[in-house]
Order: sequence, then structure tokens, then C-alpha cells
Amino acid sequence: MEEFFYEKELKKYPVVIVADGELPTHHAAITLLKQAEFIICCDGAVGHLETLGFTPNIIIGDGDSITPEQRKKYENIFIENKDIDYSDLHKTIHYCIEHEHFSVAVLGATGKREDHELANLSLLITYGMTINLAYFTNYGIFTPIFSQTTFNSFVGQQVSVFNFSGARVTFQGLKYPVIKRKFIYFWEGSLNESLADTFTVMLYAGKLLVYRAYKTSNNKAAH
Amino acid sequence: MEEFFYEKELKKYPVVIVADGELPTHHAAITLLKQAEFIICCDGAVGHLETLGFTPNIIIGDGDSITPEQRKKYENIFIENKDIDYSDLHKTIHYCIEHEHFSVAVLGATGKREDHELANLSLLITYGMTINLAYFTNYGIFTPIFSQTTFNSFVGQQVSVFNFSGARVTFQGLKYPVIKRKFIYFWEGSLNESLADTFTVMLYAGKLLVYRAYKTSNNKAAH
Repeated sequence: MEEFFYEKELKKYPVVIVADGELPTHHAAITLLKQAEFIICCDGAVGHLETLGFTPNIIIGDGDSITPEQRKKYENIFIENKDIDYSDLHKTIHYCIEHEHFSVAVLGATGKREDHELANLSLLITYGMTINLAYFTNYGIFTPIFSQTTFNSFVGQQVSVFNFSGARVTFQGLKYPVIKRKFIYFWEGSLNESLADTFTVMLYAGKLLVYRAYKTSNNKAAH
Repeated sequence: MEEFFYEKELKKYPVVIVADGELPTHHAAITLLKQAEFIICCDGAVGHLETLGFTPNIIIGDGDSITPEQRKKYENIFIENKDIDYSDLHKTIHYCIEHEHFSVAVLGATGKREDHELANLSLLITYGMTINLAYFTNYGIFTPIFSQTTFNSFVGQQVSVFNFSGARVTFQGLKYPVIKRKFIYFWEGSLNESLADTFTVMLYAGKLLVYRAYKTSNNKAAH
């Protein structure tokens, strides 16, 4: 059952946002959509939801990425927001905070244009202290943390920790030991490996993004 | 000819590294491979090069991602390096520095596993002052800069600037004006737009990653 190290976590997210990156196809994403109480869709991602056979509760966006047919079909649930300062995903997160949706999983936040991906990932750091927010991609899970956290895992799981602040970090339960170390570059905390069914990341102040890769056939997807 | 805003830049990179992310298919990548004087391949990316019909000059890696048949075929050009502290892409960059290849374009650095992508992107910031380094993806070009730089562009080009330091930055020639501003989060400098065939990013000290998206049919690929 090690592939399903995240099963318990899925229940934490009654609200699901679907963004317009890569089409979500992983088991975790489909499970999240099936059990969602509320699905929010960035306008360009309507096609993703249709492909997967789910219906959004609301659609938010600037309207640039929706066809006239889709606009007509979804006119009752489309919240048009032309604010140029924020991306469509950013607007959906604002909506969640305003409407007190405090535990939100995001699908489709990565893949395709890399600058969207980097901008999207930084929203986890910006809003992860205000609401519980995690991105489930087709390759793994991104979770922002701001204090000591223990994660579900499995032996051999590929784990990367990205430091978005000057925090000193300590890893417990990962193959390559790190003790009160300050990472300057993203590559320094990447490509570690879990030794058991949990691991812990300790930090003394700061903002980290923790990535757990799903299990693959050879549990490796090196670049 | 606005799609080919990067044509002149391609000649700057006689050495090309192919990493094991998404298969490079964009015109810029194929042109780089065609005119390359030296092609270095991360071991897992041998299949990419074979698919594209090019032959590497050397292959570098830990040997985990190469088949026994490939190992046999390429035994004369395979540099096995089992150092666990560095990814295969990292090792190819070390090789370039040691062998005085000072202008290097990287293909296949993004796509697939997102933690590899983030780690790979941070290598631009780590080594971009030592050698000229740029990543050409299927969606755009990442260039690290450490001082004022003017970029080739086209009207309407999507441009994102990511601040990897506390630098104050100024944009000239982009639609949304920025003057001596310090970005804290990646999303703050993302999704700008070029107004002409060049734009300039000014910084007073620091480390930035500049992303220029290729032209697309609607010149938009919003998430």
C-alpha cells in the first residue's frame, strides 16, 4: 500500500481547485475530485474538468481562456475577474480565503509554461500560513510548511525540500542527513530519500516547500 | 519573424547539454542541436537524442537511467560518475566548467518531475556567473542575469522575472512598470509583457532569472 501513503491526507481537502497546467491524471487527483465538496475551476481549465468527467461549482478567471460556448454553458457559475495583477489561480485562492474555505488542494498547477509553474508554486509560500494548501501534480505533492512537520511517506520515496527563506533545517528519517543547515540554492535540499513510513522536517523559522514524489516503477525519474 | 527573436542568441551556444526532462521539440532546441559543436547528454536523456536523430559526444551520469544496450553502444563516450551529492545535470555543468566550455545551452531541464525542475533551475543561479548558461524549454527560455541586461523580444511576448535575491529591480520596455522594486515572491515578477523588440532588466545587485515565452497561437498559455 506504499503508493497510497497520501490516502489519509486526501480527506483533509474538501475543496479542490483545478488550474490550467498539465491535465491531472494521477490517482490522488482523481480521488480528490471524486470526494470534493466544492470544485473551483480556473477558466482555462474547464476543458480539463470536462475531459475528466467532473463539473465545477464555480469558474473564476479573466475570461481570456474560455470559449464562447463554454461561457454560455457555464454562465451561471462563471465569476469573471479581470484584475491584471493576479493570475487566475491566484484569484481562486483569494476566493477561498474570502469564503472561508480553509483546506484546499490544487490540481494542474504545474506543467506547460514554466513561468506559470514557478509563480504558482510561490503562492503556496504566500498563502500556506493563511489556509491549508497543497498541490497534487502528476508526479508528486508540494506542501508548504512553516514549522516542524511530520509527513506520511514510504521507504525509498524521493523527497525534496526547497528553502524559500534563510531558515536552518534538520531532516529526520531521510537518507542524506541534514542538521541545522541553511540551504542557499534549491538544488541543495533536493533529491533526498525517505527511510521509513514517515519523515520529519524541522525548522527554526522560515518557509519551506516539501515535495514527495509518488512511487514509480523504478522509483526514479532523474533528469 | 517575431517567433525567431532568439535566432542570434542560438549562435552563442556551441555546447549543448541534453537533460532528461521533457523531450525537446521546439525549433530553438532543434536548431541548437543542429549547429552544436559538442553535445553532452545526461545518461537518462540518451533516448531523447536518439528520438531526435542526434548523437552525443559524451554521456555523463550515474548510470542508473541507461539500459545495458545503451551502455554497450556508448561505452567509449560514457563518463560514469556515481557522486550522490550532485544530479546528472549538475555533473554535466561541472564537466563544462572543468573543460572550459563557457557558453552552454541546456535542453530538457524542465517537465516531468517538478522537484528536478526546481533543482535544475537553481543551477542557473549557481553557475550563471561562471559560464554563460541558458535553458531552452518547449515553452520559453530561462536566462540568469547578475547585472543590467537587454533582451531580444517581440511585441506582446510574455516575460517573467524571478528574483533569487533581495535585489531591487527596474524594468524598461515591459507593459507593467516596475521601478526599483524588491520582489519577495516569484509571482510578483511574473506574467509581464514586452512592448517592443527588446526590453531591459536593471538590477543594482543580485541574482535574477528571466523567462521569455515563445510565441503561441494566442500568445497566452495561462494556468
